[in-house]
Amino acid sequence: MDTIGFIGTGHLGYPIAENLIRAGYKLKVYNRTASKAEPLKALGAEIVSSPEAAATKGGIVMSLVSDDAAVEAVNTDALLSALGNGGVHVSMSTIGPEAARKLAEKSKAHGVTYIAAPVFARPEAAAAKVGNAVIAGEKGAKERITPLLQAGFAKNVFDLGEDPGSANVLKLIGNFMIAASIELMSEAFTLAEKNNLDTRVVYEMLTTTLFASPIFRNYGGMILDRQFAGNPSFSAALGLKDIDLVLQTGKATLTPLPMADLVKSRLLTVLAQGVKDADWLALATGAMHDAGLKP
Amino acid sequence: MDTIGFIGTGHLGYPIAENLIRAGYKLKVYNRTASKAEPLKALGAEIVSSPEAAATKGGIVMSLVSDDAAVEAVNTDALLSALGNGGVHVSMSTIGPEAARKLAEKSKAHGVTYIAAPVFARPEAAAAKVGNAVIAGEKGAKERITPLLQAGFAKNVFDLGEDPGSANVLKLIGNFMIAASIELMSEAFTLAEKNNLDTRVVYEMLTTTLFASPIFRNYGGMILDRQFAGNPSFSAALGLKDIDLVLQTGKATLTPLPMADLVKSRLLTVLAQGVKDADWLALATGAMHDAGLKP
Repeated sequence: MDTIGFIGTGHLGYPIAENLIRAGYKLKVYNRTASKAEPLKALGAEIVSSPEAAATKGGIVMSLVSDDAAVEAVNTDALLSALGNGGVHVSMSTIGPEAARKLAEKSKAHGVTYIAAPVFARPEAAAAKVGNAVIAGEKGAKERITPLLQAGFAKNVFDLGEDPGSANVLKLIGNFMIAASIELMSEAFTLAEKNNLDTRVVYEMLTTTLFASPIFRNYGGMILDRQFAGNPSFSAALGLKDIDLVLQTGKATLTPLPMADLVKSRLLTVLAQGVKDADWLALATGAMHDAGLKP
Repeated sequence: MDTIGFIGTGHLGYPIAENLIRAGYKLKVYNRTASKAEPLKALGAEIVSSPEAAATKGGIVMSLVSDDAAVEAVNTDALLSALGNGGVHVSMSTIGPEAARKLAEKSKAHGVTYIAAPVFARPEAAAAKVGNAVIAGEKGAKERITPLLQAGFAKNVFDLGEDPGSANVLKLIGNFMIAASIELMSEAFTLAEKNNLDTRVVYEMLTTTLFASPIFRNYGGMILDRQFAGNPSFSAALGLKDIDLVLQTGKATLTPLPMADLVKSRLLTVLAQGVKDADWLALATGAMHDAGLKP
C-alpha cells in the first residue's frame, strides 16, 4: 500500500492516523509536539521531524491541524516541493473558504492538487469510522483519496464539486448548526425545568420523534447530564474559532446570521468565565445562567 | 363503542375525527362553522349545534380549537354539566399552561376530569396516524382516553404526569424548537447559496447525517422548494400565537429565550408583508430577504 504523510495528531487526528495504520497504510507522521505522535510508532508509523519529511514524490499528505495559520505553516514551499508533480494535499482542517482557495492556488503552482476534506466527527466517532467527510477539489484526486477518508474516519463522503472553499463552507455551516442546536436545546430544557416538567421525558419525547437526529440525541443527553467540562473532545476555544469563521464567511458574502451572533456571544461568555477545560457544549450554560438555574 | 363528543373540525381536527369514525367510534360533532363538519355526516357522524350537545353523561368530549379563548368558549358550564360526574374533557388545543390549569379547576368543580393532550402533527401526519401526543392529568382518565388518541392520530403517547399545564408547556417547547429550526436552516441554506454551494447536496448531507430528523428533513426540503404560501397546513398567524405563548410562559417563569424572540420577529415580518395564505414556514424568508436573496 501507499506511504501516506500524516500531519497533526491532535484529539481528532490521532484516531484517524491509527485507523489508517490498522487498515494497512504505511504512515510518515509529523506533529508539532512530537510526543503526541509517539504512541503511533509502536503500531508501525515512522515519526518525522518536519512537514516536508512526511511527503513522498507524487504521493499523498493528509493534514489535520487547528486553524488557518496552522494549515499555512504546513502547506509550505518545502512540503509542496517534496510532494511535487502529481502529489495531493488532503487538507482536513476546519478553516475558512478563502484560506482554502489560496492554499489550493499555491499548491497548484507546485503541481500539487489541494483537496479540502474537512471532518464531521467527534474523536470517538472518527475512531469508530462513523464520521462524515465533505470533499471538494479536482475530480481525479478526489477519487484517489476517497478510500483514505473511508479507512480513516468516514462512513459517508459528500462531494461539493471543484471549488475547494465549498467543502469548508459546508463544514462551517454544520458546526454553526450544531452550536445553534445546543443553544436551542438549552433554552428548551431550561423552560421545561423552570416549569417543573420532567426534563428526562421532555428529552425522550423530542429526541425520539421530531428531533430524532444524532446531534439532538447525543448533545441533548450531554446537556441534561451537564457534561460541560473535564476532558473536552472539542473545546470552547475551537468552537469560537469556527463560529468566527462562520461570521467572517457571512461578512464576506453579505449574509446576516443572527443565530451565529447569538452563539458567538455564548462562547465568549464561556471563555470569560475561565472554566478549565470547557467543551464547546458549555455554551448551553448561558441560557441556564440567564434564567437563574445552576448549570 | 362509546359515543364521543368531538369539537373543532379545522385543518387538524377534521382528519382526527375522520380517523375516529373509521375506527368504529360514534361521533357527535360540533364546529362553529357547521359546514366544515358537514362531510363527516356521510361517514356516520351526528352533527350537533352546540358544544354541550356533543356531550353524553359521564362520557368523553375531545376538543381541538385555535386558542385559549376558543377553549374557554367550549369548556362552559353547560358543557361541563352535560358531561357531569365521571366525564372527561380531552383538550387537544395548543394553549398556555396557566389557561389549562384554570380549565382543569373549573372542570373539576363539575366532577369532570380535564386531560391536556396537545397534538404534535401536521394534518397529513394526523391523517396517517403517525403523530405524537403528550398527555397530562389524572391517571385513570389518561388510561381511558389513550386509545382514542391512538385511533385518532398518535403513533406515540408521552405522559407528563398529573399537572395538565405540563403537557401544554412541552407542546409549546416543541413548536418553539420547530420554528427555531426553520430559522436555523434558512440561515444555513442562505449562507450556502451566497457562497455558490449546491444547496441540494448541503441539504442531503445535513439531513441524512447529523440532522437526520423529521423536522430538519421535511421542513428543510420545503424551505429549499420555497413552499411558503398557498394552502398552509399551519398558518403564520397560528405560529405567532404559539410563539407568543412560549414567550408568555418564559415571562411567567422568568426564562429569557433569545431564540424565541428572534422567531417572533420573523413571524411579525411575515404578517407585516401581508402574504396571502402564508404558512409559518415563511419565517424562513426573513434570513433570505436580509441577505438580498429572492425567497
